[in-house]
Amino acid sequence: MTQTPVDPAAQVASLVDAAGPRVPELLGRVEVLLREAASGHGPVVGAPAGATIAAGGKRLRPLLVLLAAGVGPAGDVDDARDLDLVRAAAAVELVHSATLVHDDVLDASPLRRGHPTVWATHGRAMATAVGDLLFARAFAELTATGSLESVRLLSRASSALAEGELLQRSDAWNAEVPLARYLHRCELKTATLFESACALGALHGGAGDDVRGALAAFGRRIGLAFQLLDDVLDVAGPPERTGKPIGTDLLDGTVTLPLILARERDASLAAEDLRAITTPEAAADVCARISATGALDESRARALTMVDEAKRGLPDVAQRRVLELVADSVVERYA
Amino acid sequence: MTQTPVDPAAQVASLVDAAGPRVPELLGRVEVLLREAASGHGPVVGAPAGATIAAGGKRLRPLLVLLAAGVGPAGDVDDARDLDLVRAAAAVELVHSATLVHDDVLDASPLRRGHPTVWATHGRAMATAVGDLLFARAFAELTATGSLESVRLLSRASSALAEGELLQRSDAWNAEVPLARYLHRCELKTATLFESACALGALHGGAGDDVRGALAAFGRRIGLAFQLLDDVLDVAGPPERTGKPIGTDLLDGTVTLPLILARERDASLAAEDLRAITTPEAAADVCARISATGALDESRARALTMVDEAKRGLPDVAQRRVLELVADSVVERYA
Repeated sequence: MTQTPVDPAAQVASLVDAAGPRVPELLGRVEVLLREAASGHGPVVGAPAGATIAAGGKRLRPLLVLLAAGVGPAGDVDDARDLDLVRAAAAVELVHSATLVHDDVLDASPLRRGHPTVWATHGRAMATAVGDLLFARAFAELTATGSLESVRLLSRASSALAEGELLQRSDAWNAEVPLARYLHRCELKTATLFESACALGALHGGAGDDVRGALAAFGRRIGLAFQLLDDVLDVAGPPERTGKPIGTDLLDGTVTLPLILARERDASLAAEDLRAITTPEAAADVCARISATGALDESRARALTMVDEAKRGLPDVAQRRVLELVADSVVERYA
Repeated sequence: MTQTPVDPAAQVASLVDAAGPRVPELLGRVEVLLREAASGHGPVVGAPAGATIAAGGKRLRPLLVLLAAGVGPAGDVDDARDLDLVRAAAAVELVHSATLVHDDVLDASPLRRGHPTVWATHGRAMATAVGDLLFARAFAELTATGSLESVRLLSRASSALAEGELLQRSDAWNAEVPLARYLHRCELKTATLFESACALGALHGGAGDDVRGALAAFGRRIGLAFQLLDDVLDVAGPPERTGKPIGTDLLDGTVTLPLILARERDASLAAEDLRAITTPEAAADVCARISATGALDESRARALTMVDEAKRGLPDVAQRRVLELVADSVVERYA
């Protein structure tokens, strides 16, 4: 298996094409709403918040909202539903953006997606407040849909995101983190928001309880796979494609699946003192040793199994084929 | 006028007594709910989040929710309404607590209310995530009331809090901040959450639109007065009662009403370079010069006027007398 990550933005663009004309149209409206949410508080607030939104991202979560809602290939226009879907999709992306802004503060990251972070341009205090604002705006957007169930879904996902961050920080430097704990953290940090994106789409698209549950499970599974593969990328690189040096998780003390599996296979890795890994060179060396155990292949295999389960569990919905392509795209970051 | 602040906790306790037996009973249930919200995510999360809640505070905002709802002196039991009021009161306090936790991170404050802050005990990352979690939990509590209008009110207040923080940081070190801008910041940072507390109470208490609007205006006015007097305390001290050295705002570059007014009266203060005030002694010296201009008395007089307006605008509601006492208590921090 070659493991060169593909350009995620180009990948999502091809998914959007596959979904037919209505999806890109609604995604365009999501973009407008995101910019309004960020800039609707005057220039002082709008500059850093707007820069966060304008820096973009794949908009994978908004795409999931629209696909789970069954927004169809053509002709399928329902103004009230479409407006609510656009709001729900923007809300999910606002929560995601809020957590990224806060993460950049905590990690003191100068760049994200090739743009300077709010932390870098406006400092810690402004960045913390920008994250809080984006978070509050997400709930304002959802409230406008008139659906309390939507608010419930997003507040649950927001709690999970914060809880996942807390568990990860609390587990830092603990090489003996059990596999189950790691997976629980991934559920909280990543899978729940993917799950909520699908559940929100299904809800506003008018799906029944069974279909909604199945689409939520799909989101949760591909979200979990997404996080597992992200953690593989941190060890495998290559840096010129991931945009960051390999081994950053190790330098942060964050123990992920590749190391958990590698420690079972290599006694010298099990004996490694994580706090002694303090330079990029040392981290790269440990990454090479993790890779040599076959732990990366096993991690990828586990993620692939999850993606297969996700696809197999998909109900027969309008955009089933494109949802399968989304699931594949999570894996194809390594194609 | 003597200016020794009274103990705020004792002061609120006497207000609670004046409100009759039902209010303390419901405040007790708010306390239980706050602890559950903080501790319902296992020990890792529960320790720092629970410590934040357990460290207490005056619970002035929950009290406003209950009083605005007209929770009566005795016999007035409505189980469904009471549960929703307890949830709404807890939600407002959770948002308030979330902002305090984030403020402590930004200010690197070791103590709040005499207890070590989450920042001090668990570090920056944990504290940021704890704030995010408390924020998410607030929306979860409100969602449980089944009232979308409640969620709308709190998301508006949360946006305002973040926006106020952003404006304040953006105005830092700018001695020429206009009065209107300062007042706008106070509305965003403090008054909107007081306003929301009253509006939420009125909503769940079943008040009509007129009464609800009047109670919201009451909350906004006393919130504004509260912030003005807080800013006076920062200049006037005394430190043994406020629990912090005088002039901390000056050292942060935060320009507040006393300095804005004093600069109009004393050319040497107008010429002062704020960035040159770098020691507690220098800050205390500037505080003394601000005080000498009479700016503190004028600031207090403006706050008193707002409190009078708040009381005059109060509609004839069940707990009107106690709401007047709450308004007075904002001023009596200087009695």
